[in-house]
Amino acid sequence: MNHKESLTIYTSSFIEQLYQSGVKRAVISPGSRSTPLAYLLEAHPHIQTFVNVDERSAAFYALGMAKASQEPVAIVCTSGTAAANYFPAVVEARYARVPLVVLTADRPHELRDNGAPQAIDQINLFGKHAKWFYDMPLPESDTNILQYTGRIAAKAAAKSITSPKGPVHLNFPFREPLSPDLSKYREMKSYTSVFGAEKQLSSHHVSQLTDQVNNASKGLIIAGPSEDDSAVEAILYLAEVTGYPVLADPLSGLRTNMENHKHVIECYDAFLREDELKKQLSADIVIRFGGMPVSKALSQYLKGNSSGQWLIDEGADWRDPTSSATSYIEANDRLFAEQLASAVTVRADQEWLDKWISYNQKATGEIRQYIDQEKDEGAAVGTLLQSLPEGAHLVAGNSMPIRDVDTFWIRGMKKIHVWANRGANGIDGVVSTALGIASVKAEPVYLLIGDLSMFHDLNGLLVTKQYSNQLQIIIMNNNGGGIFSFLPQASEPEHFETLFGTPPSLDFKHAAKLYSLDYIRCESKEELQQAMTHHHDQVNMIEVITDREENTAAHRILWERIATALRGE
Amino acid sequence: MNHKESLTIYTSSFIEQLYQSGVKRAVISPGSRSTPLAYLLEAHPHIQTFVNVDERSAAFYALGMAKASQEPVAIVCTSGTAAANYFPAVVEARYARVPLVVLTADRPHELRDNGAPQAIDQINLFGKHAKWFYDMPLPESDTNILQYTGRIAAKAAAKSITSPKGPVHLNFPFREPLSPDLSKYREMKSYTSVFGAEKQLSSHHVSQLTDQVNNASKGLIIAGPSEDDSAVEAILYLAEVTGYPVLADPLSGLRTNMENHKHVIECYDAFLREDELKKQLSADIVIRFGGMPVSKALSQYLKGNSSGQWLIDEGADWRDPTSSATSYIEANDRLFAEQLASAVTVRADQEWLDKWISYNQKATGEIRQYIDQEKDEGAAVGTLLQSLPEGAHLVAGNSMPIRDVDTFWIRGMKKIHVWANRGANGIDGVVSTALGIASVKAEPVYLLIGDLSMFHDLNGLLVTKQYSNQLQIIIMNNNGGGIFSFLPQASEPEHFETLFGTPPSLDFKHAAKLYSLDYIRCESKEELQQAMTHHHDQVNMIEVITDREENTAAHRILWERIATALRGE
Repeated sequence: MNHKESLTIYTSSFIEQLYQSGVKRAVISPGSRSTPLAYLLEAHPHIQTFVNVDERSAAFYALGMAKASQEPVAIVCTSGTAAANYFPAVVEARYARVPLVVLTADRPHELRDNGAPQAIDQINLFGKHAKWFYDMPLPESDTNILQYTGRIAAKAAAKSITSPKGPVHLNFPFREPLSPDLSKYREMKSYTSVFGAEKQLSSHHVSQLTDQVNNASKGLIIAGPSEDDSAVEAILYLAEVTGYPVLADPLSGLRTNMENHKHVIECYDAFLREDELKKQLSADIVIRFGGMPVSKALSQYLKGNSSGQWLIDEGADWRDPTSSATSYIEANDRLFAEQLASAVTVRADQEWLDKWISYNQKATGEIRQYIDQEKDEGAAVGTLLQSLPEGAHLVAGNSMPIRDVDTFWIRGMKKIHVWANRGANGIDGVVSTALGIASVKAEPVYLLIGDLSMFHDLNGLLVTKQYSNQLQIIIMNNNGGGIFSFLPQASEPEHFETLFGTPPSLDFKHAAKLYSLDYIRCESKEELQQAMTHHHDQVNMIEVITDREENTAAHRILWERIATALRGE
Repeated sequence: MNHKESLTIYTSSFIEQLYQSGVKRAVISPGSRSTPLAYLLEAHPHIQTFVNVDERSAAFYALGMAKASQEPVAIVCTSGTAAANYFPAVVEARYARVPLVVLTADRPHELRDNGAPQAIDQINLFGKHAKWFYDMPLPESDTNILQYTGRIAAKAAAKSITSPKGPVHLNFPFREPLSPDLSKYREMKSYTSVFGAEKQLSSHHVSQLTDQVNNASKGLIIAGPSEDDSAVEAILYLAEVTGYPVLADPLSGLRTNMENHKHVIECYDAFLREDELKKQLSADIVIRFGGMPVSKALSQYLKGNSSGQWLIDEGADWRDPTSSATSYIEANDRLFAEQLASAVTVRADQEWLDKWISYNQKATGEIRQYIDQEKDEGAAVGTLLQSLPEGAHLVAGNSMPIRDVDTFWIRGMKKIHVWANRGANGIDGVVSTALGIASVKAEPVYLLIGDLSMFHDLNGLLVTKQYSNQLQIIIMNNNGGGIFSFLPQASEPEHFETLFGTPPSLDFKHAAKLYSLDYIRCESKEELQQAMTHHHDQVNMIEVITDREENTAAHRILWERIATALRGE
């Protein structure tokens, strides 16, 4: 068999097994060395392919697709710094637990470590940030090699979706010539299936833990960020059975339907700020699911709470920055919540739950009034949340947007779904992540993003020229790094504006023109409300001009008002 | 001593030693955790600081400064994916041998590996691509710690400039609060000095090698890409003494003054293409300096040449993708060229040198005529080269630009200096690299770049809003990946345009507006010539519209014409 045939059969059988293992989407960045993978993915009858030139954006685009679909997504690039550009998204995927299958093309072994052009050391390129790395064998059509590489494809896909989900990296050595023969596309005879299981605690362990719950009258459930909402119902049920309030992070999936669940507390960030209140709300036991919540106030509350604290995490990453967990429960969230709920026999004090609900109601009232009356960025975010249609997806940028969503997403609004990159909390790659989510979801998708974060991933917009995405981008432009104004550094004016404010002074109207997007500029929340009615069947850019200092001051007033209202309890 | 004072003294004494060790420039990306480094670098009386929001661009900006100054440049960012965005430039710096001192802020040890926000595993983050990594101790004002970290600063700078030069990475754990006390800036009492030496061959080895040269009548010197032009004079002198022609890569530094050196051969890429000619020009001995040349024709010639081939490389990276070197000489280029030149006693055949010079002259003539008569991208690049003022710096993008400069930079033009990122040959980060070079060089700087590469690093332009750089950007816009049209893949039209042509259809006029740059659109080389007279005291964007297919066809005709002319010899 000649080189071209071997190359084709080897690569196509790998791709076919990848598809059989659940990879239905691939994001390809143009390059020469990666030709066999690119051509044969493109030629595959069922895999959906997307071309994205900037590899940094491409990887975040795939990340968004993988988040939204909960399926592994492949990314393909050529050798050299192309692969290095994947690093930020690989890191995010590792910590946010998103299944990415990274396929990098490489020079064959005889062109490595000898100064060949565009050849870098790609072995373990992403270090510990890839869950698994494998350097593929050279293309051959020998049955052993084909079976072996088929297994590698199945293993890569399986590893990416095994808890904790994450990125895997396969590196392919390809010799020239690189063009496959599309007529030799491989039909495989057999595929490898993988049956993954979830971790379930023994009944012995469950009964030990149940005793603790039965003896705790002031229990609290915390639902932190999770990419996967399969445990949402089970956690809500556990709350009902135990009578515990659930503090629901905006990324937990529990706020979506909070209207129907009175146990869900969404305003804790606004009222867990004063020592006196925190003391009143001190819990006997805290049962924490998911990653560390967005709220800094909550994290400080947890640090101060000396009670028992359980951390449930099948991924066993011990995500406990306050070092306050007393028990690590390395089991599946849903299974554990179900097990515990069926074993518990004693309900918590009604008074305890009522107090949380009452504080939450008061805070909700203050926040609602704030959204109506104020003019700052926070009020604008509240207005945006009120304007979203039922079922909408909102992707929130890091720094201020996700914090504002945490504060202003309260009951009384329509059911929405919130997304953010909270693995490493970067401001990079957010535009591409949102476009990736939009390419998977049928419901309308919105992106709320700061100007620096928008700038960082402007390149992500290139795909809007090729694919008919629908995305409403709302840029909160305070001309710089708004979050820094909340830091102590802001009180030292020397060097502050140069180093932290970093006003980019960008008029995004021109960026919109570059990518042929409709652009609307808003000077107030009323104009934003109006802009939200613009036709939604395309990508639109809505820029909201806000003021950093006004924003900082107004947020502080809100927290003060809530504290005053609750002090009156 | 309190936390703030310790933090200040620790960080400032580190920075002061870094300055004493030769770091005069720092590129800072905004972030909170990196506050101590950012503030104290900004407050340093002599270190020049630059703020650059996108860390990917920031690192390439610093890379450009380090290339142009041949001094180590520091880059500073916060924790998380910010640091991961440095990866492409770190990889480029590693292979291109550019001294970067990467300073990343990190969470303190008690906030690592426990799910703290924006905390990722930064230990050995860049793997083998950093020459050296060190995880710093926590800030303390204890004399032992201060002396120790001073030594680390000196060592980091020294390692970055020791052959092979490259990137080093220091990771700083900082606890909150992060603001230093600027009044406590540390004046150190003593500094560490480093005396690095160059590798010189023993006289015994030199005389062994000299015998081979004395016995070789058909010798050839090849000067490949080098970031450092300290060996240029010595190599030219070696050529004169031996009577060998020198094939001078555009990045070798040897073409700058080729007018005065008849041994310098610049058109080899155009005529080393036919088997018959290559056979006629077969050498007895090849002495190769620097990295692998840009020319693929030359690399194929070297592969086919079965004679002795020496590779001089103090960095000992064995950069020999054709595996044709017979001797590796791990010595300093300049010292070795000088040693050999003073030992050699026999000159090569005059006929041998004359043949190369005659072929080169014929090719030069054809190329000059081509620049005059043709209308393609190549002729436009030739026109650009003819229009550059004496002493100008030209930064050439990868893919087509550097290859076209290789082909069309011939004697008869003014003295210019050419730069490119040929470590990993990426199309990423080129704009920022050029801006970094422009911020160091007093002479006018030009950037020749393709549209995909321009797009990839559009974010690099943000610094033009803050710093008064002067740079003339010439974009060759063929609406996609022009180089791919030269590959065999281009002959398979199915999927080709989607996967390789990748037409971004961008009108860079809007990008120019976004960054407030003057913009000129050219439809012909005559319009380009005219645009080159636009005022130069700012950053300008000149877009040249070209055609990919016309370009490929025209280049092939040129090579054919030259082959025909030489066949007549």
